[in-house]
Amino acid sequence: MDFDTELKQYQNDINDYLDKTIPSDDKHIGTILSSMRYSVFAGGKRLRPVLMLGTAEIFDCPFENIMPYAAGIEMIHTYSLIHDDLPGMDDDDYRRGKPTNHRVYGTGMAILAGDGLLNFAFEHMLEHAYKNNGGKYVKAVLEIAHASGIHGMIGGQSVDIENTGKPMSMELIKYMHKNKTGALIKAAVKSSAIISGADDDDIKRLGLYGSNLGLAFQIIDDILDVCGDDKKLGKDTGSDASNNKATYVSLYGIEKSKDAAASLTEEAICALKHYGDRAQFLYKLTDYLLKRDF
Amino acid sequence: MDFDTELKQYQNDINDYLDKTIPSDDKHIGTILSSMRYSVFAGGKRLRPVLMLGTAEIFDCPFENIMPYAAGIEMIHTYSLIHDDLPGMDDDDYRRGKPTNHRVYGTGMAILAGDGLLNFAFEHMLEHAYKNNGGKYVKAVLEIAHASGIHGMIGGQSVDIENTGKPMSMELIKYMHKNKTGALIKAAVKSSAIISGADDDDIKRLGLYGSNLGLAFQIIDDILDVCGDDKKLGKDTGSDASNNKATYVSLYGIEKSKDAAASLTEEAICALKHYGDRAQFLYKLTDYLLKRDF
Repeated sequence: MDFDTELKQYQNDINDYLDKTIPSDDKHIGTILSSMRYSVFAGGKRLRPVLMLGTAEIFDCPFENIMPYAAGIEMIHTYSLIHDDLPGMDDDDYRRGKPTNHRVYGTGMAILAGDGLLNFAFEHMLEHAYKNNGGKYVKAVLEIAHASGIHGMIGGQSVDIENTGKPMSMELIKYMHKNKTGALIKAAVKSSAIISGADDDDIKRLGLYGSNLGLAFQIIDDILDVCGDDKKLGKDTGSDASNNKATYVSLYGIEKSKDAAASLTEEAICALKHYGDRAQFLYKLTDYLLKRDF
Repeated sequence: MDFDTELKQYQNDINDYLDKTIPSDDKHIGTILSSMRYSVFAGGKRLRPVLMLGTAEIFDCPFENIMPYAAGIEMIHTYSLIHDDLPGMDDDDYRRGKPTNHRVYGTGMAILAGDGLLNFAFEHMLEHAYKNNGGKYVKAVLEIAHASGIHGMIGGQSVDIENTGKPMSMELIKYMHKNKTGALIKAAVKSSAIISGADDDDIKRLGLYGSNLGLAFQIIDDILDVCGDDKKLGKDTGSDASNNKATYVSLYGIEKSKDAAASLTEEAICALKHYGDRAQFLYKLTDYLLKRDF
Protein backbone atom coordinates (compact mmCIF):
# COMPACT_ATOMS: atom_id res chain seq x y z
CA MET A 1 0.00 0.00 0.00
CA ASP A 2 1.41 3.44 -0.82
CA PHE A 3 1.74 6.09 1.87
CA ASP A 4 -1.22 8.25 0.85
CA THR A 5 -3.58 5.26 0.80
CA GLU A 6 -2.32 3.99 4.14
CA LEU A 7 -2.64 7.46 5.73
CA LYS A 8 -6.17 7.83 4.40
CA GLN A 9 -7.04 4.34 5.67
CA TYR A 10 -5.71 5.15 9.15
CA GLN A 11 -7.61 8.44 9.26
CA ASN A 12 -10.83 6.68 8.24
CA ASP A 13 -10.35 3.96 10.86
CA ILE A 14 -9.84 6.61 13.55
CA ASN A 15 -12.88 8.58 12.41
CA ASP A 16 -15.03 5.45 12.47
CA TYR A 17 -13.81 4.58 15.94
CA LEU A 18 -14.45 8.11 17.26
CA ASP A 19 -17.89 8.09 15.68
CA LYS A 20 -18.97 4.90 17.40
CA THR A 21 -17.28 5.85 20.70
CA ILE A 22 -18.64 9.34 21.38
CA PRO A 23 -22.37 9.02 22.12
CA SER A 24 -24.55 10.92 19.69
CA ASP A 25 -28.02 10.97 21.06
CA ASP A 26 -29.59 11.37 24.45
CA LYS A 27 -32.86 12.65 25.86
CA HIS A 28 -31.22 15.11 28.26
CA ILE A 29 -27.69 15.82 27.07
CA GLY A 30 -28.15 15.96 23.31
CA THR A 31 -26.77 19.50 23.04
CA ILE A 32 -23.45 18.92 24.77
CA LEU A 33 -22.94 15.68 22.80
CA SER A 34 -23.64 17.54 19.59
CA SER A 35 -21.21 20.29 20.62
CA MET A 36 -18.47 17.74 21.42
CA ARG A 37 -19.00 15.92 18.14
CA TYR A 38 -19.08 19.17 16.16
CA SER A 39 -15.46 19.90 17.06
CA VAL A 40 -14.22 16.31 16.96
CA PHE A 41 -15.56 15.93 13.41
CA ALA A 42 -14.59 19.40 12.17
CA GLY A 43 -11.92 17.99 9.88
CA GLY A 44 -8.83 17.34 12.01
CA LYS A 45 -5.93 15.50 10.38
CA ARG A 46 -5.73 12.98 13.27
CA LEU A 47 -1.95 13.46 13.48
CA ARG A 48 -1.63 12.13 17.03
CA PRO A 49 -3.74 8.99 16.54
CA VAL A 50 -2.04 8.31 13.20
CA LEU A 51 1.34 8.58 14.95
CA MET A 52 0.11 6.00 17.44
CA LEU A 53 -0.89 3.57 14.72
CA GLY A 54 2.42 4.13 12.90
CA THR A 55 4.31 3.38 16.13
CA ALA A 56 2.24 0.26 16.78
CA GLU A 57 3.16 -0.94 13.25
CA ILE A 58 6.81 -1.14 14.30
CA PHE A 59 5.93 -3.66 16.98
CA ASP A 60 3.16 -5.49 15.13
CA CYS A 61 0.74 -4.49 17.90
CA PRO A 62 -2.94 -5.08 17.05
CA PHE A 63 -4.64 -1.76 16.40
CA GLU A 64 -7.64 -2.65 18.57
CA ASN A 65 -5.37 -2.32 21.62
CA ILE A 66 -4.28 1.16 20.49
CA MET A 67 -7.60 2.63 19.36
CA PRO A 68 -9.09 3.56 22.79
CA TYR A 69 -5.96 5.58 23.57
CA ALA A 70 -5.67 7.05 20.06
CA ALA A 71 -9.28 8.24 20.41
CA GLY A 72 -8.56 9.53 23.92
CA ILE A 73 -5.59 11.60 22.77
CA GLU A 74 -7.63 13.05 19.88
CA MET A 75 -10.43 14.04 22.30
CA ILE A 76 -7.86 15.74 24.53
CA HIS A 77 -6.37 17.55 21.55
CA THR A 78 -9.86 18.66 20.43
CA TYR A 79 -10.88 19.93 23.87
CA SER A 80 -7.68 22.02 24.00
CA LEU A 81 -8.62 23.66 20.69
CA ILE A 82 -12.18 24.43 21.87
CA HIS A 83 -10.90 26.10 25.04
CA ASP A 84 -8.06 27.84 23.18
CA ASP A 85 -10.55 29.49 20.83
CA LEU A 86 -12.78 30.86 23.63
CA PRO A 87 -13.24 34.54 24.41
CA GLY A 88 -10.84 35.14 27.28
CA MET A 89 -8.33 32.91 25.51
CA ASP A 90 -7.50 33.50 21.81
CA ASP A 91 -11.09 34.53 20.95
CA ASP A 92 -11.00 32.98 17.48
CA ASP A 93 -14.00 32.85 15.15
CA TYR A 94 -12.83 30.15 12.76
CA ARG A 95 -11.03 26.86 13.06
CA ARG A 96 -10.43 24.49 10.15
CA GLY A 97 -12.65 26.67 7.97
CA LYS A 98 -15.66 26.38 10.28
CA PRO A 99 -17.09 28.65 12.98
CA THR A 100 -15.47 27.83 16.32
CA ASN A 101 -17.44 25.83 18.88
CA HIS A 102 -18.51 28.80 21.05
CA ARG A 103 -19.73 30.67 17.97
CA VAL A 104 -22.13 27.81 17.27
CA TYR A 105 -23.05 26.59 20.78
CA GLY A 106 -22.34 29.63 22.96
CA THR A 107 -19.48 30.13 25.42
CA GLY A 108 -20.98 28.17 28.32
CA MET A 109 -21.69 25.06 26.26
CA ALA A 110 -18.25 25.28 24.60
CA ILE A 111 -16.56 25.34 28.02
CA LEU A 112 -18.59 22.26 29.04
CA ALA A 113 -18.00 20.48 25.72
CA GLY A 114 -14.25 20.91 26.28
CA ASP A 115 -14.54 19.65 29.86
CA GLY A 116 -16.71 16.80 28.59
CA LEU A 117 -14.15 15.70 26.01
CA LEU A 118 -11.24 15.80 28.48
CA ASN A 119 -13.21 13.82 31.03
CA PHE A 120 -14.59 11.35 28.48
CA ALA A 121 -11.10 10.72 27.12
CA PHE A 122 -10.01 9.46 30.55
CA GLU A 123 -13.27 7.60 31.09
CA HIS A 124 -12.92 5.75 27.79
CA MET A 125 -9.23 4.92 28.18
CA LEU A 126 -9.73 3.74 31.77
CA GLU A 127 -12.63 1.52 30.79
CA HIS A 128 -10.36 -0.34 28.40
CA ALA A 129 -7.46 -0.37 30.88
CA TYR A 130 -9.65 -1.77 33.65
CA LYS A 131 -11.12 -4.51 31.44
CA ASN A 132 -7.62 -5.47 30.34
CA ASN A 133 -6.15 -5.70 33.83
CA GLY A 134 -4.35 -2.39 33.99
CA GLY A 135 -0.56 -2.72 33.84
CA LYS A 136 0.88 -1.25 30.66
CA TYR A 137 -2.48 0.29 29.77
CA VAL A 138 -2.58 2.30 33.00
CA LYS A 139 1.03 3.31 32.36
CA ALA A 140 -0.02 4.58 28.91
CA VAL A 141 -2.92 6.64 30.32
CA LEU A 142 -0.57 8.07 32.93
CA GLU A 143 1.89 9.06 30.19
CA ILE A 144 -0.94 10.83 28.33
CA ALA A 145 -2.29 12.48 31.51
CA HIS A 146 1.13 13.84 32.38
CA ALA A 147 1.64 15.20 28.86
CA SER A 148 -1.76 16.91 28.71
CA GLY A 149 -1.49 18.48 32.18
CA ILE A 150 0.20 21.33 33.98
CA HIS A 151 3.65 19.86 33.32
CA GLY A 152 2.75 19.50 29.64
CA MET A 153 0.11 20.99 27.36
CA ILE A 154 -1.86 23.03 29.90
CA GLY A 155 1.39 24.42 31.33
CA GLY A 156 2.45 25.47 27.82
CA GLN A 157 -0.91 27.14 27.23
CA SER A 158 -0.67 29.05 30.49
CA VAL A 159 2.74 30.42 29.46
CA ASP A 160 1.19 31.33 26.11
CA ILE A 161 -1.75 33.37 27.42
CA GLU A 162 0.30 34.90 30.21
CA ASN A 163 2.90 36.23 27.79
CA THR A 164 0.78 37.31 24.84
CA GLY A 165 1.87 40.81 23.88
CA LYS A 166 5.02 40.58 25.98
CA PRO A 167 8.60 40.03 24.81
CA MET A 168 9.62 36.41 25.43
CA SER A 169 13.05 34.89 25.74
CA MET A 170 13.94 32.03 23.38
CA GLU A 171 14.13 29.79 26.43
CA LEU A 172 10.52 30.61 27.30
CA ILE A 173 9.31 30.16 23.70
CA LYS A 174 11.01 26.75 23.59
CA TYR A 175 9.41 25.79 26.89
CA MET A 176 6.03 26.88 25.55
CA HIS A 177 6.37 24.95 22.26
CA LYS A 178 7.78 21.87 23.91
CA ASN A 179 4.80 21.72 26.23
CA LYS A 180 1.88 23.30 24.40
CA THR A 181 2.26 21.19 21.25
CA GLY A 182 5.23 18.90 21.68
CA ALA A 183 4.22 17.09 24.85
CA LEU A 184 1.07 15.46 23.47
CA ILE A 185 2.76 14.50 20.19
CA LYS A 186 5.58 12.87 22.15
CA ALA A 187 3.05 11.15 24.43
CA ALA A 188 1.21 9.74 21.41
CA VAL A 189 4.36 7.96 20.27
CA LYS A 190 5.48 6.90 23.76
CA SER A 191 2.10 5.64 24.94
CA SER A 192 1.72 3.58 21.77
CA ALA A 193 5.18 2.08 22.33
CA ILE A 194 4.19 1.28 25.94
CA ILE A 195 1.00 -0.47 24.83
CA SER A 196 2.94 -2.31 22.13
CA GLY A 197 5.12 -3.80 24.83
CA ALA A 198 8.30 -1.94 23.78
CA ASP A 199 11.24 -2.12 26.19
CA ASP A 200 12.68 0.91 27.98
CA ASP A 201 15.32 1.58 25.30
CA ASP A 202 12.67 1.62 22.59
CA ILE A 203 10.39 3.88 24.63
CA LYS A 204 13.26 6.31 25.16
CA ARG A 205 14.29 6.22 21.50
CA LEU A 206 10.76 6.78 20.26
CA GLY A 207 10.26 9.50 22.87
CA LEU A 208 13.21 11.30 21.29
CA TYR A 209 11.61 10.86 17.86
CA GLY A 210 8.36 12.29 19.20
CA SER A 211 9.87 15.29 20.88
CA ASN A 212 11.91 16.29 17.82
CA LEU A 213 8.90 15.80 15.60
CA GLY A 214 6.70 17.82 17.96
CA LEU A 215 9.07 20.78 17.97
CA ALA A 216 9.49 20.68 14.17
CA PHE A 217 5.71 20.52 13.81
CA GLN A 218 5.22 23.66 15.91
CA ILE A 219 7.90 25.64 14.06
CA ILE A 220 6.31 24.69 10.73
CA ASP A 221 2.95 25.81 12.12
CA ASP A 222 4.47 29.18 12.97
CA ILE A 223 5.96 29.45 9.47
CA LEU A 224 2.61 28.61 7.87
CA ASP A 225 0.93 31.25 10.03
CA VAL A 226 3.16 33.81 8.28
CA CYS A 227 3.43 32.32 4.75
CA GLY A 228 0.48 29.95 4.48
CA ASP A 229 -2.66 30.10 2.44
CA ASP A 230 -5.80 30.99 4.46
CA LYS A 231 -7.97 28.70 2.40
CA LYS A 232 -5.77 25.65 2.74
CA LEU A 233 -5.26 26.21 6.46
CA GLY A 234 -8.93 26.90 7.14
CA LYS A 235 -8.08 29.64 9.60
CA ASP A 236 -6.78 33.18 9.48
CA THR A 237 -3.06 33.31 8.80
CA GLY A 238 -1.15 36.14 10.42
CA SER A 239 -3.08 35.55 13.65
CA ASP A 240 0.08 35.14 15.73
CA ALA A 241 1.29 38.57 14.66
CA SER A 242 -2.09 40.22 15.15
CA ASN A 243 -2.41 38.56 18.56
CA ASN A 244 1.07 39.83 19.45
CA LYS A 245 2.38 36.32 19.96
CA ALA A 246 6.09 35.72 20.07
CA THR A 247 7.01 32.69 17.93
CA TYR A 248 10.14 30.98 16.70
CA VAL A 249 9.63 32.86 13.43
CA SER A 250 9.21 36.30 15.02
CA LEU A 251 12.52 35.79 16.85
CA TYR A 252 14.63 34.08 14.17
CA GLY A 253 12.94 34.88 10.87
CA ILE A 254 11.59 32.52 8.21
CA GLU A 255 14.81 31.12 6.79
CA LYS A 256 16.40 30.18 10.08
CA SER A 257 13.10 28.67 11.21
CA LYS A 258 12.89 26.52 8.08
CA ASP A 259 16.44 25.30 8.72
CA ALA A 260 15.58 24.49 12.33
CA ALA A 261 12.46 22.54 11.30
CA ALA A 262 14.47 20.60 8.70
CA SER A 263 17.23 19.70 11.13
CA LEU A 264 14.76 18.63 13.85
CA THR A 265 12.97 16.47 11.28
CA GLU A 266 16.29 14.90 10.33
CA GLU A 267 17.02 14.13 13.97
CA ALA A 268 13.55 12.62 14.31
CA ILE A 269 14.11 10.41 11.26
CA CYS A 270 17.52 9.42 12.60
CA ALA A 271 15.89 8.01 15.76
CA LEU A 272 13.76 5.76 13.53
CA LYS A 273 16.72 4.17 11.70
CA HIS A 274 17.03 1.49 14.35
CA TYR A 275 13.72 0.01 13.15
CA GLY A 276 14.52 -0.21 9.44
CA ASP A 277 11.55 -1.11 7.26
CA ARG A 278 9.24 -1.58 10.21
CA ALA A 279 9.19 2.23 10.64
CA GLN A 280 8.52 2.86 6.96
CA PHE A 281 5.15 4.53 7.54
CA LEU A 282 6.56 6.80 10.28
CA TYR A 283 9.47 7.84 7.98
CA LYS A 284 7.08 8.88 5.29
CA LEU A 285 4.72 10.59 7.72
CA THR A 286 7.58 12.61 9.20
CA ASP A 287 8.73 13.66 5.76
CA TYR A 288 5.16 14.54 4.76
CA LEU A 289 4.71 16.73 7.87
CA LEU A 290 7.86 18.72 7.10
CA LYS A 291 6.70 19.43 3.56
CA ARG A 292 3.05 20.09 4.35
CA ASP A 293 1.49 23.31 3.27
CA PHE A 294 -2.06 22.46 4.36
CA MET B 1 -13.35 11.51 69.80
CA ASP B 2 -16.55 13.56 69.38
CA PHE B 3 -17.96 14.24 65.92
CA ASP B 4 -16.86 17.88 65.65
CA THR B 5 -13.28 17.03 66.57
CA GLU B 6 -13.18 14.10 64.17
CA LEU B 7 -14.65 16.18 61.33
CA LYS B 8 -12.12 18.95 61.96
CA GLN B 9 -9.30 16.38 62.05
CA TYR B 10 -10.40 14.87 58.73
CA GLN B 11 -10.68 18.30 57.10
CA ASN B 12 -7.18 19.20 58.32
CA ASP B 13 -5.72 15.92 57.06
CA ILE B 14 -7.27 16.51 53.64
CA ASN B 15 -6.02 20.09 53.51
CA ASP B 16 -2.50 18.98 54.42
CA TYR B 17 -2.58 16.29 51.76
CA LEU B 18 -3.85 18.72 49.08
CA ASP B 19 -1.21 21.24 50.11
CA LYS B 20 1.68 18.84 49.66
CA THR B 21 0.18 17.30 46.49
CA ILE B 22 -0.57 20.35 44.32
CA PRO B 23 2.76 21.90 43.29
CA SER B 24 3.19 25.44 44.53
CA ASP B 25 6.17 26.91 42.80
CA ASP B 26 7.67 26.72 39.37
CA LYS B 27 9.83 28.91 37.18
CA HIS B 28 7.43 28.87 34.22
CA ILE B 29 3.98 27.90 35.45
CA GLY B 30 3.81 29.74 38.78
CA THR B 31 0.67 31.67 37.82
CA ILE B 32 -1.52 28.71 36.88
CA LEU B 33 -0.39 26.83 40.00
CA SER B 34 -1.24 29.83 42.13
CA SER B 35 -4.65 30.10 40.41
CA MET B 36 -5.37 26.40 41.01
CA ARG B 37 -4.33 26.65 44.67
CA TYR B 38 -6.34 29.84 45.17
CA SER B 39 -9.61 28.01 44.53
CA VAL B 40 -8.63 24.73 46.19
CA PHE B 41 -7.77 26.60 49.39
CA ALA B 42 -10.65 29.08 49.29
CA GLY B 43 -12.34 27.44 52.26
CA GLY B 44 -14.23 24.41 50.99
CA LYS B 45 -15.82 22.10 53.55
CA ARG B 46 -14.24 19.01 51.93
CA LEU B 47 -17.57 17.17 52.02
CA ARG B 48 -16.65 14.63 49.33
CA PRO B 49 -13.21 13.69 50.74
CA VAL B 50 -14.67 13.55 54.28
CA LEU B 51 -17.37 11.17 52.99
CA MET B 52 -14.60 8.99 51.57
CA LEU B 53 -12.78 8.85 54.89
CA GLY B 54 -16.04 8.12 56.73
CA THR B 55 -16.77 5.26 54.34
CA ALA B 56 -13.23 3.86 54.71
CA GLU B 57 -13.78 3.86 58.50
CA ILE B 58 -16.54 1.26 58.08
CA PHE B 59 -14.08 -1.16 56.51
CA ASP B 60 -11.01 -0.21 58.56
CA CYS B 61 -9.24 0.78 55.36
CA PRO B 62 -5.99 2.73 55.90
CA PHE B 63 -6.53 6.37 54.96
CA GLU B 64 -3.29 6.53 52.97
CA ASN B 65 -4.96 4.32 50.33
CA ILE B 66 -7.92 6.70 50.13
CA MET B 67 -6.16 10.08 50.18
CA PRO B 68 -5.03 10.24 46.51
CA TYR B 69 -8.62 9.67 45.39
CA ALA B 70 -10.12 11.97 48.04
CA ALA B 71 -7.77 14.71 46.81
CA GLY B 72 -8.63 13.86 43.20
CA ILE B 73 -12.35 14.18 43.82
CA GLU B 74 -11.87 17.51 45.61
CA MET B 75 -9.81 18.85 42.69
CA ILE B 76 -12.58 17.78 40.29
CA HIS B 77 -15.19 19.46 42.49
CA THR B 78 -13.09 22.65 42.64
CA TYR B 79 -12.53 22.80 38.87
CA SER B 80 -16.29 22.50 38.35
CA LEU B 81 -16.86 25.52 40.60
CA ILE B 82 -14.21 27.60 38.78
CA HIS B 83 -15.79 26.86 35.39
CA ASP B 84 -19.33 27.29 36.77
CA ASP B 85 -18.50 30.82 37.94
CA LEU B 86 -17.08 31.95 34.57
CA PRO B 87 -18.65 34.60 32.37
CA GLY B 88 -20.58 32.57 29.80
CA MET B 89 -21.63 30.24 32.61
CA ASP B 90 -23.10 31.68 35.86
CA ASP B 91 -20.85 34.76 35.78
CA ASP B 92 -20.49 34.94 39.57
CA ASP B 93 -18.24 37.42 41.36
CA TYR B 94 -18.01 35.75 44.77
CA ARG B 95 -17.62 32.21 46.01
CA ARG B 96 -17.16 31.28 49.65
CA GLY B 97 -16.81 34.97 50.50
CA LYS B 98 -13.88 35.52 48.14
CA PRO B 99 -13.65 36.92 44.62
CA THR B 100 -14.09 34.11 42.08
CA ASN B 101 -11.05 32.73 40.28
CA HIS B 102 -11.57 34.64 37.02
CA ARG B 103 -11.98 37.90 38.94
CA VAL B 104 -8.50 37.43 40.39
CA TYR B 105 -6.62 35.67 37.57
CA GLY B 106 -8.62 36.63 34.48
CA THR B 107 -10.94 34.45 32.40
CA GLY B 108 -8.25 32.71 30.33
CA MET B 109 -6.21 31.64 33.32
CA ALA B 110 -9.35 30.54 35.19
CA ILE B 111 -10.34 28.29 32.27
CA LEU B 112 -6.85 26.78 32.28
CA ALA B 113 -6.74 26.45 36.09
CA GLY B 114 -9.98 24.45 35.88
CA ASP B 115 -8.59 22.28 33.07
CA GLY B 116 -5.39 21.90 35.08
CA LEU B 117 -7.23 20.68 38.18
CA LEU B 118 -9.35 18.17 36.26
CA ASN B 119 -6.32 16.81 34.46
CA PHE B 120 -4.12 16.78 37.58
CA ALA B 121 -6.80 14.90 39.51
CA PHE B 122 -6.57 12.02 37.01
CA GLU B 123 -2.79 12.26 36.84
CA HIS B 124 -2.47 12.02 40.61
CA MET B 125 -4.99 9.20 41.05
CA LEU B 126 -3.47 7.21 38.18
CA GLU B 127 0.03 7.57 39.56
CA HIS B 128 -1.11 5.88 42.76
CA ALA B 129 -3.17 3.28 40.88
CA TYR B 130 -0.23 2.37 38.63
CA LYS B 131 2.22 2.05 41.53
CA ASN B 132 -0.27 -0.17 43.35
CA ASN B 133 -0.91 -2.53 40.45
CA GLY B 134 -4.21 -1.16 39.21
CA GLY B 135 -7.15 -3.45 39.97
CA LYS B 136 -9.54 -1.93 42.47
CA TYR B 137 -7.75 1.42 42.25
CA VAL B 138 -8.39 1.68 38.51
CA LYS B 139 -11.99 0.67 39.15
CA ALA B 140 -12.26 3.53 41.67
CA VAL B 141 -10.85 6.10 39.20
CA LEU B 142 -13.25 4.82 36.57
CA GLU B 143 -16.16 5.26 38.99
CA ILE B 144 -15.07 8.85 39.63
CA ALA B 145 -14.46 9.56 35.91
CA HIS B 146 -17.92 8.31 35.03
CA ALA B 147 -19.55 10.42 37.76
CA SER B 148 -17.72 13.61 36.80
CA GLY B 149 -18.36 13.25 33.07
CA ILE B 150 -21.12 13.69 30.52
CA HIS B 151 -23.23 10.95 32.14
CA GLY B 152 -22.77 12.64 35.51
CA MET B 153 -21.69 16.10 36.67
CA ILE B 154 -20.88 17.68 33.29
CA GLY B 155 -24.14 16.34 31.87
CA GLY B 156 -26.03 17.91 34.79
CA GLN B 157 -24.27 21.22 34.24
CA SER B 158 -25.12 21.20 30.56
CA VAL B 159 -28.82 20.72 31.40
CA ASP B 160 -28.48 23.57 33.89
CA ILE B 161 -27.05 26.19 31.53
CA GLU B 162 -29.23 25.06 28.64
CA ASN B 163 -32.42 25.54 30.66
CA THR B 164 -31.65 28.68 32.64
CA GLY B 165 -34.61 31.01 32.28
CA LYS B 166 -36.80 28.26 30.87
CA PRO B 167 -39.56 26.33 32.62
CA MET B 168 -38.31 22.88 33.60
CA SER B 169 -40.25 19.71 34.36
CA MET B 170 -39.70 18.05 37.73
CA GLU B 171 -38.21 15.09 35.86
CA LEU B 172 -35.59 17.37 34.27
CA ILE B 173 -34.80 19.14 37.59
CA LYS B 174 -34.32 15.74 39.22
CA TYR B 175 -32.05 14.62 36.40
CA MET B 176 -30.05 17.83 36.76
CA HIS B 177 -29.67 17.51 40.54
CA LYS B 178 -28.91 13.83 40.44
CA ASN B 179 -26.09 14.46 38.01
CA LYS B 180 -24.80 17.95 38.70
CA THR B 181 -24.32 17.44 42.44
CA GLY B 182 -25.43 13.94 43.31
CA ALA B 183 -23.22 11.92 41.00
CA LEU B 184 -19.90 13.04 42.50
CA ILE B 185 -21.17 12.67 46.08
CA LYS B 186 -22.33 9.15 45.29
CA ALA B 187 -19.01 8.39 43.57
CA ALA B 188 -17.09 9.57 46.64
CA VAL B 189 -18.84 6.96 48.77
CA LYS B 190 -18.73 4.20 46.15
CA SER B 191 -15.10 4.68 45.14
CA SER B 192 -14.05 4.64 48.78
CA ALA B 193 -15.97 1.40 49.29
CA ILE B 194 -14.27 -0.08 46.20
CA ILE B 195 -10.81 0.86 47.48
CA SER B 196 -11.72 -0.49 50.92
CA GLY B 197 -12.34 -3.88 49.32
CA ALA B 198 -16.10 -3.85 49.94
CA ASP B 199 -18.12 -6.57 48.17
CA ASP B 200 -20.77 -5.86 45.53
CA ASP B 201 -23.65 -5.79 48.04
CA ASP B 202 -21.84 -3.21 50.18
CA ILE B 203 -20.97 -1.10 47.14
CA LYS B 204 -24.61 -1.13 46.06
CA ARG B 205 -25.88 -0.34 49.58
CA LEU B 206 -23.44 2.52 50.03
CA GLY B 207 -24.21 3.77 46.54
CA LEU B 208 -27.83 4.07 47.63
CA TYR B 209 -26.72 5.97 50.73
CA GLY B 210 -24.64 8.32 48.55
CA SER B 211 -27.36 9.01 46.02
CA ASN B 212 -29.99 9.82 48.67
CA LEU B 213 -27.51 12.00 50.51
CA GLY B 214 -26.53 13.79 47.30
CA LEU B 215 -30.12 14.63 46.42
CA ALA B 216 -30.89 15.80 49.97
CA PHE B 217 -27.75 17.92 49.89
CA GLN B 218 -28.81 19.67 46.69
CA ILE B 219 -32.35 20.37 47.95
CA ILE B 220 -30.93 21.87 51.15
CA ASP B 221 -28.62 24.00 49.03
CA ASP B 222 -31.63 25.30 47.12
CA ILE B 223 -33.45 26.04 50.39
CA LEU B 224 -30.44 27.93 51.75
CA ASP B 225 -30.26 29.93 48.54
CA VAL B 226 -33.71 31.26 49.40
CA CYS B 227 -33.56 31.40 53.22
CA GLY B 228 -29.85 31.41 54.02
CA ASP B 229 -27.63 34.10 55.45
CA ASP B 230 -25.29 35.71 52.84
CA LYS B 231 -22.48 36.07 55.34
CA LYS B 232 -22.55 32.47 56.51
CA LEU B 233 -22.79 31.14 52.96
CA GLY B 234 -20.09 33.44 51.61
CA LYS B 235 -22.00 33.96 48.41
CA ASP B 236 -25.04 35.88 47.29
CA THR B 237 -28.25 34.18 48.32
CA GLY B 238 -31.18 34.52 45.96
CA SER B 239 -28.84 33.88 43.03
CA ASP B 240 -30.95 31.02 41.67
CA ALA B 241 -33.98 33.29 41.47
CA SER B 242 -32.07 36.19 39.95
CA ASN B 243 -30.45 33.78 37.45
CA ASN B 244 -33.91 32.45 36.60
CA LYS B 245 -32.99 28.95 37.68
CA ALA B 246 -35.70 26.40 38.31
CA THR B 247 -35.04 24.51 41.54
CA TYR B 248 -36.81 22.01 43.74
CA VAL B 249 -37.86 24.95 45.91
CA SER B 250 -39.22 27.06 43.06
CA LEU B 251 -41.40 24.15 42.01
CA TYR B 252 -42.53 22.76 45.37
CA GLY B 253 -42.02 25.59 47.87
CA ILE B 254 -39.93 25.66 51.04
CA GLU B 255 -41.97 23.39 53.31
CA LYS B 256 -42.36 20.53 50.86
CA SER B 257 -38.66 20.81 50.00
CA LYS B 258 -37.71 20.59 53.67
CA ASP B 259 -39.84 17.48 54.01
CA ALA B 260 -38.24 15.93 50.94
CA ALA B 261 -34.73 16.65 52.26
CA ALA B 262 -35.62 15.12 55.63
CA SER B 263 -37.09 11.98 54.12
CA LEU B 264 -34.13 11.50 51.75
CA THR B 265 -31.78 11.92 54.71
CA GLU B 266 -33.74 9.29 56.61
CA GLU B 267 -33.46 6.89 53.68
CA ALA B 268 -29.74 7.58 53.53
CA ILE B 269 -29.35 6.84 57.24
CA CYS B 270 -31.43 3.69 56.83
CA ALA B 271 -28.92 2.33 54.31
CA LEU B 272 -26.19 2.75 56.95
CA LYS B 273 -27.94 0.66 59.62
CA HIS B 274 -26.38 -2.53 58.28
CA TYR B 275 -22.98 -1.30 59.53
CA GLY B 276 -23.98 -0.44 63.08
CA ASP B 277 -21.33 1.39 65.05
CA ARG B 278 -18.80 1.18 62.27
CA ALA B 279 -20.82 3.83 60.38
CA GLN B 280 -21.09 6.11 63.40
CA PHE B 281 -19.18 8.96 61.78
CA LEU B 282 -21.27 8.77 58.59
CA TYR B 283 -24.52 8.82 60.63
CA LYS B 284 -23.47 11.99 62.39
CA LEU B 285 -22.18 13.58 59.21
CA THR B 286 -25.47 12.88 57.43
CA ASP B 287 -27.43 14.37 60.30
CA TYR B 288 -25.11 17.39 60.43
CA LEU B 289 -25.57 18.03 56.69
CA LEU B 290 -29.35 18.03 57.00
CA LYS B 291 -29.23 20.57 59.80
CA ARG B 292 -26.50 22.79 58.37
CA ASP B 293 -27.10 26.45 57.88
CA PHE B 294 -23.60 27.36 56.68
